[in-house]
Amino acid sequence: MSDLDIRPAALNDIPAIVAMLADDPLGAQRESPDDLAPYEAAFRRLADDPNQHLMVAVRETRVVGTLQLTIVPGLSRRGATRSIIEGVRVHGDERGSGLGTQLIQWALDESRRQGCHLVQLTSDASRTDARRFYERLGFTPSHVGFKLAL
Amino acid sequence: MSDLDIRPAALNDIPAIVAMLADDPLGAQRESPDDLAPYEAAFRRLADDPNQHLMVAVRETRVVGTLQLTIVPGLSRRGATRSIIEGVRVHGDERGSGLGTQLIQWALDESRRQGCHLVQLTSDASRTDARRFYERLGFTPSHVGFKLAL
Repeated sequence: MSDLDIRPAALNDIPAIVAMLADDPLGAQRESPDDLAPYEAAFRRLADDPNQHLMVAVRETRVVGTLQLTIVPGLSRRGATRSIIEGVRVHGDERGSGLGTQLIQWALDESRRQGCHLVQLTSDASRTDARRFYERLGFTPSHVGFKLAL
Repeated sequence: MSDLDIRPAALNDIPAIVAMLADDPLGAQRESPDDLAPYEAAFRRLADDPNQHLMVAVRETRVVGTLQLTIVPGLSRRGATRSIIEGVRVHGDERGSGLGTQLIQWALDESRRQGCHLVQLTSDASRTDARRFYERLGFTPSHVGFKLAL
């Protein structure tokens, strides 16, 4: 397969990112690819925050993957900075290509580069394939992830 | 009991915060209350980040609780901003006093005030009391929390 470029997302990548967020059993119910305004507002907020890294994976000018990496300083674990991975998506055409692994490897490398001691993420318990994927990459499912909608 | 004040942490609250982080079955192995320098460096980094809220609960000038609230913008869920709660600790003398609930309620109120649509946190699966506590407050244990040490 042709080369993959992982780079910061730009405003005009938003339609492709939102299409991937919506093309998902859980995302289909909660995204609005026909109304991009709220995504563009959120993009501007992300772009202004130096601890936010919204990335896209691009193959031959086509956006085929995305993830968001957040750098979180903190006091616990001797003042350890951690990173949090959110919103990992791979285009339907690219599943099984190793692209998900490349995206997570990018996040691990960038987290190391920024001095993080810990990388964390949560995955919906119904995503059993995701669980195997993260365990294979060395993640430990040691925690319960709680959510509360406001 | 006397009134409780929940306010942003100051540099001179660090010894009390670190003592609480270390007074915990998991924290005892990974904190260094005799060497505060790494915590002070992390505190400065938190203080410089407008999306970070390191808080203390104070009763009669004594620090008796702490938590860290991180505001995380994002594209998914129609550009929803979420918040993440980390490092919740209540002083041993105050357990069972309702202080943990007051800290989490503060975090939910502040998250609403900042327009967040979702609050999330992870808790070590070995903390069974914490699980009951968060469920009672309305959190759903819908996710698996993965960690990877770098």
